Amino acid sequence: SWMEVLHQGLRAFADLTREEYLQVQQYLLGQKDLDISTNQITKPSENFLFLIELSLPRKADVLAYLDEKGAKPTREATAVVFHGKRGYVKEYVVGPLPNPTYYRDVTQERYKTELPITARTVTVGEYNLFFKFLEDVFSKLGTLMKESFDVDLDKTLNAFEQMPRGVQSGDRNTWISFFRDVAGMYIHPVGFEVLVNHQSLNASDWKVERLLYNGQYFNTIEELQHQYDAGSVKKIVYKKSPEHGSLKPRNKPLQIGPQLFYAEGKRYSISHNHVLYLDWSFAFGLSSLTGMRVFDVRFNGERILYELSVQEAMSVYGSVTPGMILTKFLDSSIGVGRFAHELVRGVDCPHEATYVDTYRYIDVPAPVRFRNSICVFEHNTGQPLRRHFSDFFHNSYGGMVNSALVFRTITAIGNYDYMWDFIFYQSGSVEAKVHATGYISSSYLVAGSLKYGHQVAENVLGNIHTHFINFKVDLDVLGVNNYFQTKDMEYVNVSLPWMADRSTLVPQLVEKQLKTEQEAALRYDTKTPRYLHIASNKTNRWGHQRTYRLQVFSFTGDHLPESQPEERAMSWARYKVAITKHKDLEQTSSSLYSQNNIWSPAVDFSKYIEDNESIEDEDLVAWVTTGFLHIPHSEDIPNTVTVGNGGGVLLRPHNYFDEDPSIHSDSCDNNRMA
Amino acid sequence: SWMEVLHQGLRAFADLTREEYLQVQQYLLGQKDLDISTNQITKPSENFLFLIELSLPRKADVLAYLDEKGAKPTREATAVVFHGKRGYVKEYVVGPLPNPTYYRDVTQERYKTELPITARTVTVGEYNLFFKFLEDVFSKLGTLMKESFDVDLDKTLNAFEQMPRGVQSGDRNTWISFFRDVAGMYIHPVGFEVLVNHQSLNASDWKVERLLYNGQYFNTIEELQHQYDAGSVKKIVYKKSPEHGSLKPRNKPLQIGPQLFYAEGKRYSISHNHVLYLDWSFAFGLSSLTGMRVFDVRFNGERILYELSVQEAMSVYGSVTPGMILTKFLDSSIGVGRFAHELVRGVDCPHEATYVDTYRYIDVPAPVRFRNSICVFEHNTGQPLRRHFSDFFHNSYGGMVNSALVFRTITAIGNYDYMWDFIFYQSGSVEAKVHATGYISSSYLVAGSLKYGHQVAENVLGNIHTHFINFKVDLDVLGVNNYFQTKDMEYVNVSLPWMADRSTLVPQLVEKQLKTEQEAALRYDTKTPRYLHIASNKTNRWGHQRTYRLQVFSFTGDHLPESQPEERAMSWARYKVAITKHKDLEQTSSSLYSQNNIWSPAVDFSKYIEDNESIEDEDLVAWVTTGFLHIPHSEDIPNTVTVGNGGGVLLRPHNYFDEDPSIHSDSCDNNRMA
Ligand SMILES: [Ca+2]
Ligand SMILES: [Ca+2]
Ligand SMILES: [Ca+2]
Ligand SMILES: [Ca+2]
Ligand SMILES: [Cu+2]
Ligand SMILES: [Cu+2]
Repeated sequence: SWMEVLHQGLRAFADLTREEYLQVQQYLLGQKDLDISTNQITKPSENFLFLIELSLPRKADVLAYLDEKGAKPTREATAVVFHGKRGYVKEYVVGPLPNPTYYRDVTQERYKTELPITARTVTVGEYNLFFKFLEDVFSKLGTLMKESFDVDLDKTLNAFEQMPRGVQSGDRNTWISFFRDVAGMYIHPVGFEVLVNHQSLNASDWKVERLLYNGQYFNTIEELQHQYDAGSVKKIVYKKSPEHGSLKPRNKPLQIGPQLFYAEGKRYSISHNHVLYLDWSFAFGLSSLTGMRVFDVRFNGERILYELSVQEAMSVYGSVTPGMILTKFLDSSIGVGRFAHELVRGVDCPHEATYVDTYRYIDVPAPVRFRNSICVFEHNTGQPLRRHFSDFFHNSYGGMVNSALVFRTITAIGNYDYMWDFIFYQSGSVEAKVHATGYISSSYLVAGSLKYGHQVAENVLGNIHTHFINFKVDLDVLGVNNYFQTKDMEYVNVSLPWMADRSTLVPQLVEKQLKTEQEAALRYDTKTPRYLHIASNKTNRWGHQRTYRLQVFSFTGDHLPESQPEERAMSWARYKVAITKHKDLEQTSSSLYSQNNIWSPAVDFSKYIEDNESIEDEDLVAWVTTGFLHIPHSEDIPNTVTVGNGGGVLLRPHNYFDEDPSIHSDSCDNNRMA
Repeated sequence: SWMEVLHQGLRAFADLTREEYLQVQQYLLGQKDLDISTNQITKPSENFLFLIELSLPRKADVLAYLDEKGAKPTREATAVVFHGKRGYVKEYVVGPLPNPTYYRDVTQERYKTELPITARTVTVGEYNLFFKFLEDVFSKLGTLMKESFDVDLDKTLNAFEQMPRGVQSGDRNTWISFFRDVAGMYIHPVGFEVLVNHQSLNASDWKVERLLYNGQYFNTIEELQHQYDAGSVKKIVYKKSPEHGSLKPRNKPLQIGPQLFYAEGKRYSISHNHVLYLDWSFAFGLSSLTGMRVFDVRFNGERILYELSVQEAMSVYGSVTPGMILTKFLDSSIGVGRFAHELVRGVDCPHEATYVDTYRYIDVPAPVRFRNSICVFEHNTGQPLRRHFSDFFHNSYGGMVNSALVFRTITAIGNYDYMWDFIFYQSGSVEAKVHATGYISSSYLVAGSLKYGHQVAENVLGNIHTHFINFKVDLDVLGVNNYFQTKDMEYVNVSLPWMADRSTLVPQLVEKQLKTEQEAALRYDTKTPRYLHIASNKTNRWGHQRTYRLQVFSFTGDHLPESQPEERAMSWARYKVAITKHKDLEQTSSSLYSQNNIWSPAVDFSKYIEDNESIEDEDLVAWVTTGFLHIPHSEDIPNTVTVGNGGGVLLRPHNYFDEDPSIHSDSCDNNRMA
């Protein structure tokens, strides 16, 4: 059947299987010239196979395969090798799967630059050395550590790294902030921070470059040690802290809340990476780096989206303490999808949801299975999708409840947990949403701290920060040849046809078609038209161009000024929405190498629009930025709540159908007279 | 018990009972000098008792009663009489209930002006004459009506009035647009509009001032008749239209969607007008005019809001056809709460919700019971309120599902159905939300129409319009003496303490306290600080002022320019948020008389801030505007969907508690290791 054919076709988007990861790993291990290790504690000075994941096939090939009975695209993997021995990072494409026979260096093709080894993510192998290095620091400061932090052989402090690691390309100088080793460590800073230079691939070269203790700077461990012993520093005296980071409920639950149930079974089905729900069909995947994504999203058999995916989660922090003065986190460099862990039934998703396992290969010796790391469920939103009641002229009622399919992962990247939802409505809309929860990042309260946030616990400052999230929205509205149009209103002076001497201001529709990428790069600090559309030149029954509208929900703070050397690595955040001409080599708005080489990023999104290509009658991609300004407050303890802390984009049909498609939905239950 | 005392006290906010309405009605009928009729088809030239509803007690009296064991406030009603015989409208206060002994004219006190009789809402009595008048028009145009619209003795057209009714104070000239008498008449315009002058209280003086037929204007019925017969007008030839307005599902439901159930019973209770839900307590009411409202909202016994209420729903339309050129609807002049009809189980609210009856007296001969017109339910939002998963250092998980109490009415005001939700979260937040559904307002497609919207059906234009909604938010943060503060970020240049030659831009917290009403009137077209707070000078455990933050969700179009004579009746929409000093005589931002005397409104909100009072250490009220620009499209047929078509305001604790109060909630279910 055509459904079976589609189902097979969508395997092109499927993440690698456990077997495929192993086949790629074994193949690369067999390439003696690569001289790769897969040992998890491979040293930085060796060659480490850091990442294997699906290499997305070229869009044209997939479309030919799905739509034109073209050849099945070759299945390939991307492998990232940190070549410590050679001082660079390489990306290879390995194929064909399942039995690889070739690998190809694609670094230059993808990034138009070499990737220096300092651009690499810190691996378990490097952390292993790093923690040993820190233990050594602790042991040199034995008395201070015991008196100030109760650190001894049995008890330690936890480290939280700040990034970027320095001020210029090549730097790998990381401020480490220390936290108590208790539940919710992120809100238990102790007032001790250390700047470690670990730029050398040889750990024996690493050194402490500065220390901060109780707000005071020291150049060396010895200087701190000496002054502490001499009594010339203001000492922190250890005190057991209250367990404000605990997530244990303070009271016993008396009664559980309302639950969802499927009275007549599930109205969706999942097979491999393919989901069917009423009129919807889509394929899904989870990139270790960028996170959740769906492909070939169809409504009633018609493709609406080629791709909808998470791209990046970025935060800029403010602080008086050194670590967080520079802090700008770019999560996809650590891996957004990497931290999609098991979802808890009844809390993270409803009990009745369907849970899907995923497999990943990132900074591990062998592929890892993440049980129940995606959930899919139909949710009754508790409100009508549409309804009307009338008691004028006719007494009538019609309506339909708003039940929608939710596709979710939650990624706990250090302190924060981002909840990612793609929601499929019966009215033909798709929504991409993100909410933040988990722990805020905090610092030890010192003089001057309160300019950068609020105190949220004893000696704890919740630091002000931004949350910027980028989504890739590759709508294909009736094929790939599309236009970007805007609609808005303006008041126009009109004289009244029945009172020639009178005029009045009347709202008129203002429609525009933007011609080039630069025109369509809508900057965050400018007024933008209220309606944004990806349009086909095909028309609906009433002669209007069929379109999908992007409606952005966002509460972002200010974007980092472009004067800053770190800004180019996050240049996607300059724009609320930017439209580019689709290119296979412009797959993501950020990269794995943005965080650790932030000053000279492998991907600078603003370059995608620098060539200012035409966006008329082209395959268009919308890059959408959302997020919120976070000024932490006492209620962020123990965890930030999801309510009000999020953003997203709603993709809505607008003159796409001839009428609201939910009128044809099979789920028009409960339609009856009031 | 104190709960019983509170419960009794909150009856001060309860809507009038059926008996109370009757007592007021009988008392006023007994006042011979008022010479009132309660007959539903009372003529405009007589005195008609239009409205009875609760007269809210003075806030100071209620607070003294609830908080200081003061005297119980006298229970009083407001009665609105349309004195056709005398040419004015009067508002009376009638009391004490249940056995009235006095009535008092409060018109001048409340509005500082007389209310001309032309300011009145059109009553059933006037409509009765109006429809007879229109029948007469139809009968004079017999051939045309039959040939163009298939109107005869058995079949008629439905009328939809456009407002305002003219261009200056005193006018009562209404453009009537005609629609087919079928399901969803609002999207079946026929191309016939008539301007009726019904200013006179004597219907025999009424006259047709202009007619529009198929885009062409005529001065008299006879002129149209004559030209039609002479074949010199472009005729509309009747054709049965497709049933695009029907809400009948096109397919049979196969399988119902997910449902909510209370596995262990309800966690809320409702007694009279008092709701208890976990840590929440509030009183509720439903004004016939302004709609849904809650009072004395407490969390954990502490009052947070004195009042949260719907104030007004306003729309400005654009069109080339005459009715909608002027159209500016102000729904509270017809009655927002008036149209809170029965809610349908399983569509409008979950099956398991609790449904509450309401009683109203507006344009009726006797009080009317509206069965199941409020619903209350606890909703499982399908997402965690907060959660954290960790596998660094410790393997741990904690979280809690986001279940919240929803308090809802849906008011079908003509074509539109507004869904109003107040939502109470376990994290101490309260949200006021509105969504629009129901039918769009449409016009017959003629030359020039497409400047004002899109075609959505055969010969049907969906007209561009704005939705502006106003909420009153009387937060009392630890008493009535509050401050209005804003918080935001700004980048500040800082030199790195450990690298004296290097500087960087760091986000800093910017806090301000606004001093006067005019400073705190945040205009819709200006950049406003991202965080808005009502603050107490009392501090939390960490020394920060305890506050509630207002987070507004809004997608409004442009507000009508102040140059327009109709603007003062909707001047609340100039501001995203405006803060005023609380006054009992500034109870609402709009009034019953705004629509029909729009040029000289009884309430002009901007006057509340004209005196520019101090807002420091005062009882503050926030007036919040939200809404969305609506450019109708084919998917608005048959009904606008709720998804993406709404707005609201979230009231969030910010340094109010010492930590997130949900950690103490009784509902921390499912907290366990992953
Ligand atoms: Ca380009
Ligand atoms: Ca596209
Ligand atoms: Ca004032
Ligand atoms: Ca107040
Ligand atoms: Cu945050
Ligand atoms: Cu609308």
